[in-house]
Amino acid sequence: MERTFAARGDIYYTESPSVARAVRDGWLVVVDGKVEGVWQRLPERYSHLDVKDFSGKLVIPGLSDLHVHASQYQFRGLWMDEELIQWLNTHTFPEEARYRDEAYAGKAYGIFVDDLLRSPTTRASIFATIHADSTMVLCRKLEEAGLPCFVGKVNMDRNSPDILCEETGQSIRDTLAYIDEVTSTCSLVRPVVTPRFIPSCTDGLCRALATIADERNLPVQSHLSENLGELEWVKELCPDSTSYADAYRALGLWGGRRTIMAHCVYSLGHEEEMLADDDIWIAHCPDSNTNLSSGLMCARYYLDRGCRIGLGSDVAGGTTLSLLRSITDAIKVSKMYWRHVDQSMKPLCFREAFHMASVIGGSFFGDVGTFLPGYEADIVVLDDSTLPTTIENLGVEERLERYAYLRPEAPVAHKAVAGRWLL
Amino acid sequence: MERTFAARGDIYYTESPSVARAVRDGWLVVVDGKVEGVWQRLPERYSHLDVKDFSGKLVIPGLSDLHVHASQYQFRGLWMDEELIQWLNTHTFPEEARYRDEAYAGKAYGIFVDDLLRSPTTRASIFATIHADSTMVLCRKLEEAGLPCFVGKVNMDRNSPDILCEETGQSIRDTLAYIDEVTSTCSLVRPVVTPRFIPSCTDGLCRALATIADERNLPVQSHLSENLGELEWVKELCPDSTSYADAYRALGLWGGRRTIMAHCVYSLGHEEEMLADDDIWIAHCPDSNTNLSSGLMCARYYLDRGCRIGLGSDVAGGTTLSLLRSITDAIKVSKMYWRHVDQSMKPLCFREAFHMASVIGGSFFGDVGTFLPGYEADIVVLDDSTLPTTIENLGVEERLERYAYLRPEAPVAHKAVAGRWLL
Repeated sequence: MERTFAARGDIYYTESPSVARAVRDGWLVVVDGKVEGVWQRLPERYSHLDVKDFSGKLVIPGLSDLHVHASQYQFRGLWMDEELIQWLNTHTFPEEARYRDEAYAGKAYGIFVDDLLRSPTTRASIFATIHADSTMVLCRKLEEAGLPCFVGKVNMDRNSPDILCEETGQSIRDTLAYIDEVTSTCSLVRPVVTPRFIPSCTDGLCRALATIADERNLPVQSHLSENLGELEWVKELCPDSTSYADAYRALGLWGGRRTIMAHCVYSLGHEEEMLADDDIWIAHCPDSNTNLSSGLMCARYYLDRGCRIGLGSDVAGGTTLSLLRSITDAIKVSKMYWRHVDQSMKPLCFREAFHMASVIGGSFFGDVGTFLPGYEADIVVLDDSTLPTTIENLGVEERLERYAYLRPEAPVAHKAVAGRWLL
Repeated sequence: MERTFAARGDIYYTESPSVARAVRDGWLVVVDGKVEGVWQRLPERYSHLDVKDFSGKLVIPGLSDLHVHASQYQFRGLWMDEELIQWLNTHTFPEEARYRDEAYAGKAYGIFVDDLLRSPTTRASIFATIHADSTMVLCRKLEEAGLPCFVGKVNMDRNSPDILCEETGQSIRDTLAYIDEVTSTCSLVRPVVTPRFIPSCTDGLCRALATIADERNLPVQSHLSENLGELEWVKELCPDSTSYADAYRALGLWGGRRTIMAHCVYSLGHEEEMLADDDIWIAHCPDSNTNLSSGLMCARYYLDRGCRIGLGSDVAGGTTLSLLRSITDAIKVSKMYWRHVDQSMKPLCFREAFHMASVIGGSFFGDVGTFLPGYEADIVVLDDSTLPTTIENLGVEERLERYAYLRPEAPVAHKAVAGRWLL
């Protein structure tokens, strides 16, 4: 039977932020692409299944990237001495404009998808550019690679350089055409409505996009409260709103459907109730928030409150697609928040951050991100044998922590999505 | 002629924190292990030299690690959910105690030296453990690898677990014997007097070590103002001192000789004048300060004041030996310091942090860390061709920045120390 097997290895997954299960030399059984369960010994009733032997390797759920700009991947790790708005204008927008050329998009998105495939990420919610045709190039490459991502054609019709500024009507028409094409030609990849952020979208465009999301039953993704300069700008643009989130709500782009808001660095004290009450997925992007000097985000608050806070690589504000790196970056940021901002907010521990990257992020995509029965069998296999040490008898969680700190960007050994092996 | 050649490649080095020189497809000429100069075209008078062709690769000065615990390398990336004092007692001290066994030391230091050799570091100032014999094992391995490091047998005679606590007289005798053995058997590796930190050294031991440093004309290394808990502890132990630094001064362990103080996170406002006036080398260890929740260090203050502030990996508070990673970590920490502590302290830029890791760190070891004429030819060659991108015509500094963010831990392609090729 297809997508049905028993995988042997050192298995780790979380059930809650504080509860993890680690089974050394255990068995993960997958039937028809879904998890049956994890056992120390393979139950007799599964003894006829194909065996995938990953003995001695780490077997973890695939991770979900809640925020990544595929169109910025080519300049990851460059020009990091600049702050958000300058960096957008000097480097990001000119580079995104190049994606009007489908040939360029093919080459650039090819590199992105190759690297995403080899990363620990199995699902991602992606920003492309304003260009519907080249965004379809990205969708087709993800579909071919077998990665079930949400991909957004970006909308921008104000405060943007001419070469990247859409006419409102055209932006709406292109979005509809893009949605039709993705849904009719892709089975894994799905569209997501993607207003870039309030400063680059007119009220009319925002309202039209909200209507599209409702009519087509689509999720929405955007940016929220990333940077102090951006916050001031939104205040000027939306003087009647009580917060940045409230401005989205007034435009119909807040809740009532699956919604990701990236960053939320400055939401505490202004709009944290709205994030919690309206079940928004928060994409916490620690590396980007540091690189762009945005600030220290308080993940602890949202996690303890039971909010849907997952992780985002936010390439190219972040430099790497590896969510294992985002996990350790989130821990580091939480330590500095505790030390320098609020000592009542204790640092994230490894298990909590892993839960954010796997289970909470995964929940945006369905029953994804853990090995509890019925979940999609998104599986990543990591080989930690290339990291020599004299320390023996490490537990599975310790080995995973070590791998996340030392080799987060190494290509994964194997990867499956919904039980289908891609690597 | 030995250690004499003309190396061709994309060359980068700094002359000051703000002045860098980048020569694409240039020539670095080395005669008898020392830099003659860097030229765009090879001068006729050097045309007879052996050519080392690194065309298309990055050629940079070797980096100097001002603070690293070789004896903690085996547990890098583990148990990062803990703060300094707990982490020391639970994991660090028990592991360091294992080095009483020379066979264990041989295995563990072998892994450390192998990885150091392949890192961008050419020189380091290293903490071993209290065990003189196994510290000699480390010295011999570094000597064989060709890495001219300072290595300290650590001194601890109070507030330490029994298995790692020396009797004062024995500590002094072992230190003298160690110094004699290193100086008589090694030509590259040199001893450095290494009281762990004030809490673990009695006044008598400190004074004796100060005398040894003076009589043998040796440098000193220790820890300073890393963590708030540690600061309180030193205050209790040294009630008559006006600061942690002042406590070292009262014991004869401050200045008047080459001295490294690691961390200095909480020196600003207490002892920054002493650091500046007494020409102390500050080992800024950004990754460790974050991992151990110590705090955000203000490198900008010391750099602008002209202090000797270099970088330290501080393995295993830090997770990696790569100072290219320390460079980007220092930038990140400086951004968060600017954002959350003091907006008059602008973030470090890449060039400044590179200068700290190369030239300022190198100055502890002599004329080391740049390609100005007369400097030791410590050379590291990096291959950035394995990082695909569609962005063309990047400058040499941009490529180096990108490499530092994306692949800091990749093994270097080639390495020379004082003109002798090790890789």
